[in-house]
Amino acid sequence: MIDFSVDKKIWVPWMRRSIQLALLAEGRTSPNPLVGAIVLDSIGRLVGEGYHTGAGNAHAEIEALNQAGEKSIDGTIVVTLEPCCHQGLTPPCTEAIIKAGLKRVVIGMVDPDPRVSGNGISRLKDSGLDVIEGVLKKECEEINREFIFRVRNGRPWGILKWAMSLDGRIGLLNGSSKWITGVTARDSVHQIRSRCDAVIVGGGTVRADNPLLTSRGKSEIEPLRVVFSRTLDLPLSAKLWDTKIAKTLIAYGPEGDEAFFSDLPSGPERLRLNSDDPSELLISLSEKGCNKILWECGPLLATSAIEAECVQEVAVFIAPKLLGGISSMSPLNNFGFESINSTYKLQHSLLERKGEDLCWSLLI
Amino acid sequence: MIDFSVDKKIWVPWMRRSIQLALLAEGRTSPNPLVGAIVLDSIGRLVGEGYHTGAGNAHAEIEALNQAGEKSIDGTIVVTLEPCCHQGLTPPCTEAIIKAGLKRVVIGMVDPDPRVSGNGISRLKDSGLDVIEGVLKKECEEINREFIFRVRNGRPWGILKWAMSLDGRIGLLNGSSKWITGVTARDSVHQIRSRCDAVIVGGGTVRADNPLLTSRGKSEIEPLRVVFSRTLDLPLSAKLWDTKIAKTLIAYGPEGDEAFFSDLPSGPERLRLNSDDPSELLISLSEKGCNKILWECGPLLATSAIEAECVQEVAVFIAPKLLGGISSMSPLNNFGFESINSTYKLQHSLLERKGEDLCWSLLI
Repeated sequence: MIDFSVDKKIWVPWMRRSIQLALLAEGRTSPNPLVGAIVLDSIGRLVGEGYHTGAGNAHAEIEALNQAGEKSIDGTIVVTLEPCCHQGLTPPCTEAIIKAGLKRVVIGMVDPDPRVSGNGISRLKDSGLDVIEGVLKKECEEINREFIFRVRNGRPWGILKWAMSLDGRIGLLNGSSKWITGVTARDSVHQIRSRCDAVIVGGGTVRADNPLLTSRGKSEIEPLRVVFSRTLDLPLSAKLWDTKIAKTLIAYGPEGDEAFFSDLPSGPERLRLNSDDPSELLISLSEKGCNKILWECGPLLATSAIEAECVQEVAVFIAPKLLGGISSMSPLNNFGFESINSTYKLQHSLLERKGEDLCWSLLI
Repeated sequence: MIDFSVDKKIWVPWMRRSIQLALLAEGRTSPNPLVGAIVLDSIGRLVGEGYHTGAGNAHAEIEALNQAGEKSIDGTIVVTLEPCCHQGLTPPCTEAIIKAGLKRVVIGMVDPDPRVSGNGISRLKDSGLDVIEGVLKKECEEINREFIFRVRNGRPWGILKWAMSLDGRIGLLNGSSKWITGVTARDSVHQIRSRCDAVIVGGGTVRADNPLLTSRGKSEIEPLRVVFSRTLDLPLSAKLWDTKIAKTLIAYGPEGDEAFFSDLPSGPERLRLNSDDPSELLISLSEKGCNKILWECGPLLATSAIEAECVQEVAVFIAPKLLGGISSMSPLNNFGFESINSTYKLQHSLLERKGEDLCWSLLI
């Protein structure tokens, strides 16, 4: 007979289902992680499913337990992340699990949040529950890569995106860059935005491109649009200043001339920083609840973001076009490398054809 | 009952076999095309196979007929290209076919060579043979794309290859470019060379990289190594001047200072051109029997080769590295485009991962 307490494999299919449930809220739970849970009754029948739909809403465990009701007595809960044991926006899940009369808790990964981090598991064990840890741990960590990164580093996971021609150009000499990539690739950028909590550009991009920076409705909550400007030398009229569709934050360093705000519409939020260091901006965004941000900036800001370790992933769109130009715009500025061996080496993550274009995602 | 004269489909498997045979000599037949042939006896049994192994050697039809011997009487020959009807380095194949007593000739494509171009087919029909044309025509044209291009345009098919970082750089500011791509990608460049009749670089590449430019033995006949130098301002010592492994041709325009040759080893061949136009070089290489050449040059020559329509295909190797650098070396020089709509748009041909790197091949 299978010993359900020892053989982790038996729980793998149920953990997969919990992961599927967790992913239903992709891009909507920040600063919280994605969490999914299922409840089985005492003889192993599925009696409850749930997932966390967003900060302030019920946790996955509560959703699943509510669905199961009394059927959870002597049952099992399979949850992707260690249940919380602290009072946050909602009460601790450990207490609800204990109260529900379950006999077993199967957990994908330990919650890296220092308020939990094993304490949830201890609380459950101390209450006499059978706790099985680490089922599909890698997969459970994978879906919350950005949350884990933010909890551990105090900064959101950064993605840098650029679109270039086959000969590595992001625009012509005259600044023209619309459109290097095709409709499918641009649609895919909207998709990436929809899974990010904020999109950051520099002042140069606002001046040159006057972008909208939304997911074009692909996300219920549009990402926060952030303009990171050193000097606040920004146009008074820009699509980003209209905050009806999506919020805008104007972040600026000590050199920013605040007189700019006097004639600006009141929609955009302001954030004064103590430096021009991209890390400082990201710490602020982390505090605002961002797990994952997208850099859609020009070469200068992109380069300083990489140098400040504010980029963990790059998504490069490559169009089958030749633009030419020794002095045409390039994706990145000087790093000052003297040897190819000292350059940044990235790790392949995903390569996809997007219409006529390629999208290559890599980890730094 | 199947009418073998009318139903082309019946010949498709045999034409596929002929194509397979033709490809056995890939990269070795220039200026001649790749040709494969099979002979079936009067009741349809395979009795002969042959392919053209190189200029001056027997044609595919002759190889296959020799193997079949008397079994070819009342039989069928299936050949990828229209049999020749003129005396070249070898006698006309049409006469050998007629003499062999075959009753049917199945042909993939008409020979674009103006000396043949339908005349071979007429000669066979006039002799009472049943001729079936156009079986797997597209595939037969495909394997001889470069030959067909050269016959129609008087210039070899040009491939431009470059290797760059993810941010579109072919070298650092200090000129360092060894090695942007990994071993697998470099091996793949040797493979491309092995299928080309010549490899062309400019003087700058000789001065900066002192390349060897061989297929590293991947081809029985190493491609001709061509240095295209405007001024003949070349180093007196270079790997290319040693012609024991592979031939070298130094081509130069009217400004070339021929004094350079006085101290040079006698191995390299010389070619004085009337202009710096890459087309003139390619016409000369076509006359030397090149069907397919590879541009492995720097941005200046690459750009003028593209502008002179001397590039039909590009093979771009992209390494997962970030080099940076506003003034780092780029694959191409200025084309003077004013709008993205007027830039070169290429057609996807093949995308492959080569170790850690990508290789994207496209048609211009």
